[in-house]
Amino acid sequence: MMIIMKSNATPQEVEHVIEHIKAVGLSVHLSQGVETTIIGAIGETHNIPTEQFEVLDGVEAVQRITQPFKLASRQFHPENSVFPLDGFTIGGEELPVIAGPCSVESRSQIIETAQAVKEAGASALRGGVFKPRTSPYSFQGLGEEGLEYLAEARQQTGLPVVVEIMSQVQIEVMVEYVDVLQVGARNMQNFNLLRVIGETQTPVLLKRGLSASIEELLMSAEYILAGGNKQVFLCERGIRTFETATRNTTDINAIPVLKSLTHLPVILDPSHSTGHFDYVAAIARAAVAAGADGLIVEVHPDPAHALSDGRQSLKPERFAAMVKQVGQIAEVMGRRLVNVQTGEKPQSAIASSHS
Amino acid sequence: MMIIMKSNATPQEVEHVIEHIKAVGLSVHLSQGVETTIIGAIGETHNIPTEQFEVLDGVEAVQRITQPFKLASRQFHPENSVFPLDGFTIGGEELPVIAGPCSVESRSQIIETAQAVKEAGASALRGGVFKPRTSPYSFQGLGEEGLEYLAEARQQTGLPVVVEIMSQVQIEVMVEYVDVLQVGARNMQNFNLLRVIGETQTPVLLKRGLSASIEELLMSAEYILAGGNKQVFLCERGIRTFETATRNTTDINAIPVLKSLTHLPVILDPSHSTGHFDYVAAIARAAVAAGADGLIVEVHPDPAHALSDGRQSLKPERFAAMVKQVGQIAEVMGRRLVNVQTGEKPQSAIASSHS
Amino acid sequence: MMIIMKSNATPQEVEHVIEHIKAVGLSVHLSQGVETTIIGAIGETHNIPTEQFEVLDGVEAVQRITQPFKLASRQFHPENSVFPLDGFTIGGEELPVIAGPCSVESRSQIIETAQAVKEAGASALRGGVFKPRTSPYSFQGLGEEGLEYLAEARQQTGLPVVVEIMSQVQIEVMVEYVDVLQVGARNMQNFNLLRVIGETQTPVLLKRGLSASIEELLMSAEYILAGGNKQVFLCERGIRTFETATRNTTDINAIPVLKSLTHLPVILDPSHSTGHFDYVAAIARAAVAAGADGLIVEVHPDPAHALSDGRQSLKPERFAAMVKQVGQIAEVMGRRLVNVQTGEKPQSAIASSHS
Amino acid sequence: MMIIMKSNATPQEVEHVIEHIKAVGLSVHLSQGVETTIIGAIGETHNIPTEQFEVLDGVEAVQRITQPFKLASRQFHPENSVFPLDGFTIGGEELPVIAGPCSVESRSQIIETAQAVKEAGASALRGGVFKPRTSPYSFQGLGEEGLEYLAEARQQTGLPVVVEIMSQVQIEVMVEYVDVLQVGARNMQNFNLLRVIGETQTPVLLKRGLSASIEELLMSAEYILAGGNKQVFLCERGIRTFETATRNTTDINAIPVLKSLTHLPVILDPSHSTGHFDYVAAIARAAVAAGADGLIVEVHPDPAHALSDGRQSLKPERFAAMVKQVGQIAEVMGRRLVNVQTGEKPQSAIASSHS
Repeated sequence: MMIIMKSNATPQEVEHVIEHIKAVGLSVHLSQGVETTIIGAIGETHNIPTEQFEVLDGVEAVQRITQPFKLASRQFHPENSVFPLDGFTIGGEELPVIAGPCSVESRSQIIETAQAVKEAGASALRGGVFKPRTSPYSFQGLGEEGLEYLAEARQQTGLPVVVEIMSQVQIEVMVEYVDVLQVGARNMQNFNLLRVIGETQTPVLLKRGLSASIEELLMSAEYILAGGNKQVFLCERGIRTFETATRNTTDINAIPVLKSLTHLPVILDPSHSTGHFDYVAAIARAAVAAGADGLIVEVHPDPAHALSDGRQSLKPERFAAMVKQVGQIAEVMGRRLVNVQTGEKPQSAIASSHS
Repeated sequence: MMIIMKSNATPQEVEHVIEHIKAVGLSVHLSQGVETTIIGAIGETHNIPTEQFEVLDGVEAVQRITQPFKLASRQFHPENSVFPLDGFTIGGEELPVIAGPCSVESRSQIIETAQAVKEAGASALRGGVFKPRTSPYSFQGLGEEGLEYLAEARQQTGLPVVVEIMSQVQIEVMVEYVDVLQVGARNMQNFNLLRVIGETQTPVLLKRGLSASIEELLMSAEYILAGGNKQVFLCERGIRTFETATRNTTDINAIPVLKSLTHLPVILDPSHSTGHFDYVAAIARAAVAAGADGLIVEVHPDPAHALSDGRQSLKPERFAAMVKQVGQIAEVMGRRLVNVQTGEKPQSAIASSHS
Repeated sequence: MMIIMKSNATPQEVEHVIEHIKAVGLSVHLSQGVETTIIGAIGETHNIPTEQFEVLDGVEAVQRITQPFKLASRQFHPENSVFPLDGFTIGGEELPVIAGPCSVESRSQIIETAQAVKEAGASALRGGVFKPRTSPYSFQGLGEEGLEYLAEARQQTGLPVVVEIMSQVQIEVMVEYVDVLQVGARNMQNFNLLRVIGETQTPVLLKRGLSASIEELLMSAEYILAGGNKQVFLCERGIRTFETATRNTTDINAIPVLKSLTHLPVILDPSHSTGHFDYVAAIARAAVAAGADGLIVEVHPDPAHALSDGRQSLKPERFAAMVKQVGQIAEVMGRRLVNVQTGEKPQSAIASSHS
Repeated sequence: MMIIMKSNATPQEVEHVIEHIKAVGLSVHLSQGVETTIIGAIGETHNIPTEQFEVLDGVEAVQRITQPFKLASRQFHPENSVFPLDGFTIGGEELPVIAGPCSVESRSQIIETAQAVKEAGASALRGGVFKPRTSPYSFQGLGEEGLEYLAEARQQTGLPVVVEIMSQVQIEVMVEYVDVLQVGARNMQNFNLLRVIGETQTPVLLKRGLSASIEELLMSAEYILAGGNKQVFLCERGIRTFETATRNTTDINAIPVLKSLTHLPVILDPSHSTGHFDYVAAIARAAVAAGADGLIVEVHPDPAHALSDGRQSLKPERFAAMVKQVGQIAEVMGRRLVNVQTGEKPQSAIASSHS
């Protein structure tokens, strides 16, 4: 950490900063230039807020040199993290495509969709049961009933299920049912939730907040990693900008930036990042070409009657076409789509406990 | 709601949309122009998502005419809402200033600060005990111990206390101790939290999310109001933009816009909206001049040793100067600062239950 | 255009709006619902500002139905525009890669770079001679001397040259020398400049402004098209958002959105849209996978000594690797990179007039 | 300037950076810490781009210490700049209000408006004659004819006139007619234009670009100052953000931030920064309360028939009410509105040369 003094800082002010650095257990490196004095604070600085120094008299600015995250950092862990995910891996050569409806709406809807997306080449099934809806008057999800239907869909298709958790009070029931806990954009900085997830061993799909910086996304991953859960993968899902032609702006730059900063797998959600089914396939292809480790896509058998997010949902046929295109791009990138085995899945412990 | 058809939409597509409108219980008003057919969907549309129509074949766009919120709307409730708040009111002629540290750090710190801010003219005390921190390595708050100290500060000064709630599991302890529940920017769309707060009768300070639109802020207020809790006041605290000279961009426009859209009181937080103590007084004055109904300001007796947000905290002397300036602006606006009675407050039920 | 009246609008206010619509030559379609009256204004509305109606008493909002641009619209011109560009085409199956330094710095630098990028697979040469620099103390370009060097580079390599025009006073000299006039992001709404360019027949590369919406980009294209110059192609080059990890945020969504709204070719500039050479290849691949019709990339033989934009410039070797990857993605998309003929170009009229 | 080396930088890489620093005429201050080596580059760094160092091998990041602007900086010129402006001053105790229509539409319209705004308390007259319009089909201004009308309005009312310049080719005619050259948001980085303005001695109102940072605004001022024209005042006019409830987001923070960074006067344009007449007075009051040195406001006698910006224009009565409120806020701030003398102005040199 470097503390840059004002050009008119007094020797007393410089001395006071030095004492403050020592008081928090760091060592000091003083550099007196013609225009400015710079004081280096050296040691374990990632857990010391820069503000402590910014408010001292005579200080112009404080600059971090090292990143404020550690466990998530590629400096700390240079190799890509590759996690097993119920029959396949994420972060390595295999490239999973997670697909399914925004919300689980009924038993038949989720089972029908699961079969359709599997046939079209999906490697996992998504479906919300607790829904974060902007309006209190919108459909709020089926709750635990929806989890039962997902378990059944899982058993019939063999697809692992990815479900969003909305609150720390849902952790027990969720861990029992789901293969991957999804943390939604609105909860990326729900630190209480991140902490309880960090105490489980269930893989986590952490979505970037609507206006979260890449650094903040990595700090939220750090919360989970610091709790002991190492199976975190990140998801770019569009950020909020001035452009209104699309629901969000896909930050495609985030793919190569994240891949350089962290060892964690990074996927992209072209449904939320565009908000319109017409643009999903183009952005899915772009994501894989940019180096993404996977995709999560909304698919609904009948978007016009979807209870949520119909506008951005693909029909199964369109999804199948998208998977085919993505597969070709993956090949150019030296990757391959996950090849899901056919036939029913042997009942897993989780699914059987509810049958 | 108006459904605008594509210029090349077929009569069958138009017919299909009309059937869909009727199916959701709305009536139809057809308007066939030269270039375009527009279909009005009339009735209780605020709980029907526009997407249902956007995905139908032949539809170009769907436009809401009425606002998607109702209880929060000034159309529905033309008069300003004025709430009593432990000795004074908010939303009327009186203009409260809530002040205190970002975090409760110790018994002496909060009691000392409470006395200092009271003396300087504050009408309520703020202080966090559960802290949403970006880094898992930062100070996370004193928890219930902090609430005890706040109760003591309250008893000694008579200032009602405003405390942030972070999770639905904290609702019981919070309601017991605090006068106003604060919902922070990161939780503005934590709908589970909004719902449990809606079931209480404790006044709520709802802060705007970092990238929440004004409409989304009002939809979040609608969640609380729909639950039965009518005492909601809103807080502009800065939005995230490209400008990095300040921590956030104070959306001062939100003050007159909110005052025209809603009857709920609106306050401003110049500490978070600027991020730097040097700019707090200027923005506090601007807020009141723009029509804000109050302020919430971070004050710390020793910002350099604050465990959080030191850079944006005012020392008590600076805060006192700010209150004086704000009082003069308030007078021009036909408002007046709350005149807090001196002397100890008679022990309230809440405070005494913990003494 | 639809004028939505306030729920409490009087019959006189409705009548007044109707008169206003007729006065500007439009016809009226009245639609009186239970909650609201909507008045359609039908006819040639694209040149009538919505504001004229927004300020009338009793008006709640005004909504356009048809797009405010016409010549640029795919509705008006459903087929892709394909332009010849000195030996190849843009907008069709061929996919050109324009490459070169930010600034022409010297004769040897531009000729050396031209040869290097041609060898690496570039189809055209870029190079600035009038530089828009944020600081008055930065290198401002070589001016006409730079154009001479570009002409020489063009003659030696056969690559057509793309050069930014900064002001309407440069139009004559530019038209004489360059194959493509580039309008930079800062000049996207320099309407005086757009008008003079519209009067030429030189192809135009129109870059999106830093915070221009997609609609505004198309309106700027409309200025040029309306002047009579039909050879306009558009360039996404990153927009300004809150994210600071990259210089700009590549709006990859803009590629499929523009391709659906307009018939004009669309290319992407991964150098400016990322600001860092490390991310250029990933975003170049993504652009082509998303459907872009070409790329423009900064290449410099010695980025550390570049007088501008060194950080985002590729060395020729890295550029060659990028072209190879992009070529493979193009193939998947059913496109192919332009195959530049080897050998010197026969002296063209433009080049020879200066030799 | 500080060059922060990567933790694994080699001694050769450090040495190479040191040589590079010396080669550009700066001296070196080396600081080798445990984790990182930092190299200070000391001397006149404001005209050296940081990129030169960012691209060198082994460099992690480069940080400026001193600001990249100089003549505009308060460090360089601690006292407020106060300019005389035809009968009053800007930047001192007096607080001018510039008012008038978006566009000069006719002789009678501008003269009528000039008299109305003068009566209501305006200190200067604005009016556009070359209009930057998003659509090529919108009204583009009266050109020189409009300047004649403005000169006449000036003569009749004594109000100095503020007119936007759109292109360097207009400089001669503009300097002859106008009292203040306005540089619009879209031209803030039209560096050719800034340079020609810098060579005049006409006062300049420089508006902030739609997505320009505060630092970039000051760099554009620097262009003009570096040319020799010292009479520059800055204008906050709203920035583009995700919020669509208003046309732009007024960056009220920019007022105190600019006042601390620069000695130049700073005014605010509440018409463009909100886009709606309903919000103009609130934001005008806020601006003055935040420390602005003046205001520029759109006023039109008949907004419904304005050829541009009708929605954000005040009628003269509303403007008069606004001036009254602003005057009271100014008094609290220790400022006062300019008291324009009544009666005709003695013909000035400029006006008489055209009568």
